[in-house]
Amino acid sequence: MNKLIDVIEYMHLVGRSARAASRAIARASTAQKNAALFETAIALEKRDAHILEENAADVRDAMKADLSAAMIDRLKLTSKTIASMANGLRQIAQLPDPVGEITSMNTRPSGIQVGKMRVPLGVIGIIYESRPNVTVDAAGLCLKSGNATVLRGGSEAARSNQAIAACISAGLKAAKLSESIVQVVETTDRKAVGEMITRPEYIDVIIPRGGKSLIERISADARVPVIKHLDGNCHIFVDEHADLEKAVRVCDNAKTRRYGVCGAMESLLVHEARIHDVLPRIAKIFADKGVEMRGCERTRSVLAAHDVKPASEEDWSTEFLAPIVSIKIVTNLDEAIDHIERYGSHHTDAIITEHWSHAQRFLREVDSASVMINASTQFADGFEYGLGAEIGISTDKLHARGPVGLEGLTTQKWIVFGDGAVRA
Amino acid sequence: MNKLIDVIEYMHLVGRSARAASRAIARASTAQKNAALFETAIALEKRDAHILEENAADVRDAMKADLSAAMIDRLKLTSKTIASMANGLRQIAQLPDPVGEITSMNTRPSGIQVGKMRVPLGVIGIIYESRPNVTVDAAGLCLKSGNATVLRGGSEAARSNQAIAACISAGLKAAKLSESIVQVVETTDRKAVGEMITRPEYIDVIIPRGGKSLIERISADARVPVIKHLDGNCHIFVDEHADLEKAVRVCDNAKTRRYGVCGAMESLLVHEARIHDVLPRIAKIFADKGVEMRGCERTRSVLAAHDVKPASEEDWSTEFLAPIVSIKIVTNLDEAIDHIERYGSHHTDAIITEHWSHAQRFLREVDSASVMINASTQFADGFEYGLGAEIGISTDKLHARGPVGLEGLTTQKWIVFGDGAVRA
Repeated sequence: MNKLIDVIEYMHLVGRSARAASRAIARASTAQKNAALFETAIALEKRDAHILEENAADVRDAMKADLSAAMIDRLKLTSKTIASMANGLRQIAQLPDPVGEITSMNTRPSGIQVGKMRVPLGVIGIIYESRPNVTVDAAGLCLKSGNATVLRGGSEAARSNQAIAACISAGLKAAKLSESIVQVVETTDRKAVGEMITRPEYIDVIIPRGGKSLIERISADARVPVIKHLDGNCHIFVDEHADLEKAVRVCDNAKTRRYGVCGAMESLLVHEARIHDVLPRIAKIFADKGVEMRGCERTRSVLAAHDVKPASEEDWSTEFLAPIVSIKIVTNLDEAIDHIERYGSHHTDAIITEHWSHAQRFLREVDSASVMINASTQFADGFEYGLGAEIGISTDKLHARGPVGLEGLTTQKWIVFGDGAVRA
Repeated sequence: MNKLIDVIEYMHLVGRSARAASRAIARASTAQKNAALFETAIALEKRDAHILEENAADVRDAMKADLSAAMIDRLKLTSKTIASMANGLRQIAQLPDPVGEITSMNTRPSGIQVGKMRVPLGVIGIIYESRPNVTVDAAGLCLKSGNATVLRGGSEAARSNQAIAACISAGLKAAKLSESIVQVVETTDRKAVGEMITRPEYIDVIIPRGGKSLIERISADARVPVIKHLDGNCHIFVDEHADLEKAVRVCDNAKTRRYGVCGAMESLLVHEARIHDVLPRIAKIFADKGVEMRGCERTRSVLAAHDVKPASEEDWSTEFLAPIVSIKIVTNLDEAIDHIERYGSHHTDAIITEHWSHAQRFLREVDSASVMINASTQFADGFEYGLGAEIGISTDKLHARGPVGLEGLTTQKWIVFGDGAVRA
């Protein structure tokens, strides 16, 4: 970017060209979109050395700037991660094109035919932190779903992101598509974010990818709709009628398979009838695997053999993303549901039970993006659900809930066919 | 409301009880919800005289306060309108219950079954102006779709709305449902609106019903998602390959059937090949019916026999809601689509053509909530589309687009069934 251009003016240019480009990509054929994805994959592989060079420069700067080890780890690219970005694009190319799908056409008494057609959202703004692979993943999903994209990565990854952006431009060009379909914002000025989130005339929806504080900050100031991914404070309720082996297996997996994922169980609720078989079995596994337990008073007395810390009021609402679990003994299904509604984050919650009506009540009454019966909360993931790929997991209720794939990046318009039909 | 209670505190009470009530109505059976609708209908009919009395008092005050004749007209109730509100509720009772519908269940390679269940949104806030019948219509639709509602009508209709609210309470009570499921805000203090639109912990979505300025004001300050209905600047493009009779019939209907509805055609685009047959025929009808025409230079010269005023730049963007139409001659389909994208409001736009590819391009490329082929834009309506009833017409892209019926008042959660399934 020419430094003489004002950031606001620059973002207007970006916005205007994104809006114009959105019309071109909305009508592009599936073959053309797939060609752009394949060509970008090839460009990434070809320019592998250059991307790694630019990335190394970012990493050097990040170390000089004393960024956290976790952040530097997320920033770092290898030949392997670049190859995996390229393969990700090829996988997206193989997914069915959601655009143009016509559903529910039916003829009305007036003679008109009415139905719905799936169409792109328009322009999608992505605001993200250090991981440079988001540039490729997000651009690929938005492109396949017929949207233009404005991407704004973290300043610590600026050089990596621009190197990747050049590959996407090359891919678009090779497919004879406008390079403005995917724009990676070239300024690291914070005002750019302010412009993105307050201009509905340019951007139809913002998807922030990053920590909760980033997302909350963006949502607070946005005038453009935001698809949010906030907490995943996931619960498993082991019902009175749970199968012992299933309960133990699922709770173990839901907590310990991976600690840092949003679908990890953070809170275990156990029916009081099962505190002598299920609870000690699970507690032993947690103790063996070094999972810190924080329990209610009753849990602490039942599990006196273990070092169970008292759970604070705050613990019940906390997404630990760590080898920590809160445990509560409840007297019935209602108490379990009440607890989940009060302290949960409406992300993913599961019941372990063989009791038909308890399963049905849990399914219907727990108001979460994903509600599971006899399955590990760690399944909460677009790939596991069969979406092929995901741009994120929504904790919103409107538009898209839970894992968001290509369909979540589209909307439906009404279509009406007549033969000169007029309304009476 | 006890005048000693602070408005903010009062709105917290309303919000908290709405949130609690939303769980009760979400799990209510279809039979119970229908019973509440039927009982409310009966209560309205029984208390007809009382409602008319309270309404007369509102009307007297409105006249004293010198409100506009149009506003007083919207405020006024008759025995007939009350009967029609009651019948509206009976119709809503007869619509299929959207809640609980399970779709797309399929088995994944991991063994889990994944699908979606339709569920209520939670708590819906309705903010509206003088029409008291909105109280009944909105409450009925929200109730049937399993949501709790907080309604805030205009101060000019306060007594009418409270009389109607008492009928709804009676209906809920007779069906053994909590009266907090539908709450009509009792204060006319403007702070109440501010509280409604900034508390996502109490309200999941706001639906404003009223003029554009009300909706824009609410959207600007809202922290809760808003389903907006802004302009309906609808276009009809008469293509080179239009059938003459269909073009004339549809354009006449789209403009003159009713002038004040959002689906009325406000702008007519005519292909230059049809300025000697289609255009004069339509212009004659408009002239005969007293529709003021504002045209581009070419239109004015072609229609020199009529008094066509020059269309200003602003006219192209204007939703007249009156016997006024803007007319432009275009040289091809691209110019028509460009014009619609530039000046339109993405509400409803139609093409009149017998040309397959032109129809397909228009259908795909015009980014409006409703896109029509050879049909009058005045069909843009929930009843005409077969929704049974509508709470409004959305001009948003996310969540619900175009006419919003029961389905638009719900969302889908993911459901996962396993048999002790764990993620690898």
